[in-house]
Amino acid sequence: MGKFIVLEGIEGVGKTTNMEFICQYLSGKHLDVVRTREPGGTVLSEKIRDIVLHTKDTEPLAVDAELLLMFAARAQHVAEVIIPALTQGRWLVSDRFIDASYAYQGGGRGIAYDRIAILEHWVLNNLKPDRVIILDAPVELALSRTRHRKVKDRIEQEQADFFTRFREAYLQRAQVDPARYRIVDAAKPLSHIQEQLSTILDELIK
Amino acid sequence: MGKFIVLEGIEGVGKTTNMEFICQYLSGKHLDVVRTREPGGTVLSEKIRDIVLHTKDTEPLAVDAELLLMFAARAQHVAEVIIPALTQGRWLVSDRFIDASYAYQGGGRGIAYDRIAILEHWVLNNLKPDRVIILDAPVELALSRTRHRKVKDRIEQEQADFFTRFREAYLQRAQVDPARYRIVDAAKPLSHIQEQLSTILDELIK
Repeated sequence: MGKFIVLEGIEGVGKTTNMEFICQYLSGKHLDVVRTREPGGTVLSEKIRDIVLHTKDTEPLAVDAELLLMFAARAQHVAEVIIPALTQGRWLVSDRFIDASYAYQGGGRGIAYDRIAILEHWVLNNLKPDRVIILDAPVELALSRTRHRKVKDRIEQEQADFFTRFREAYLQRAQVDPARYRIVDAAKPLSHIQEQLSTILDELIK
Repeated sequence: MGKFIVLEGIEGVGKTTNMEFICQYLSGKHLDVVRTREPGGTVLSEKIRDIVLHTKDTEPLAVDAELLLMFAARAQHVAEVIIPALTQGRWLVSDRFIDASYAYQGGGRGIAYDRIAILEHWVLNNLKPDRVIILDAPVELALSRTRHRKVKDRIEQEQADFFTRFREAYLQRAQVDPARYRIVDAAKPLSHIQEQLSTILDELIK
């Protein structure tokens, strides 16, 4: 049976580089890997991603609308990609998933966690990732790494205190269910991060 | 103060023609009228409408995703159009609103009403239309009127039993709260329908 692995973290912690590493590491072990992301992962969900990330400032996205769009995209992603892949015994690696809603919409935007929990129950039922890997770094360091990006989307333009709440919410999630979560120090050199990732993945493979 | 009027009904009952009539009738009384529709009514909500109505058959829209998209579009519509218009004392006429979710997603698609009620409470709080006018006609008659339309969207292609449940759910909603609902027989001649609409509108104006 395949496993469901999620990589989480605020902007600038190196998710893109390490998603690539994780997928190549698993493929190197001759595992059948599906790489996906949230919001997104299906044609429809990518359209929703586009709406959420690129809403013009002339039309501020209502907080409730953002939360519901994220879960709409997730419902489609679960039905169309995640459940089929896991049913077929494939390994699934997602760049963000449910924890991002708790961290971003909950911690960051201040939406009540019990509201997010109701949507989680509706959309995921009892589906949970086997392992959630949180790339964690101090907000200042992470944000300094995004500064060179020329085009910032709406989410990257949020303020530092928003990212502090975003980060804290991730760490709280990990504390509640330590068996399923691993926190990786993204402030360390890449070689050290990827050594830790390898250990986490080996634990799942064996 | 303005009033919030919603026109509801299944496909083929003449909503477009009678939306036009209602708005012209109110404008003719020198009232400041905002005409809107659901799903839609804002740039973002119209994008969501487009996703919901034109999902290709290659990517069937998950039932949960559809419900959440509808309420995401509604949250944006309420924040950006409905609340501001009512606060300014304008009259607001919407082609469909919350009852369409109960009728279409609930009655038609079989989503539990209490799930819809939770979303209604989140997104609308205590906002309710002053008057909901349901254009009602037997399903066969209504569907026969849509048959000449060359391009049918996904919703118009649903089966007749779907529309029967859709219609029944509207009628049930009206029964529960008769003070706010008016049912207009859309099988009657247009002159008769519009006479009834005028009476309903006069009741609100005075």
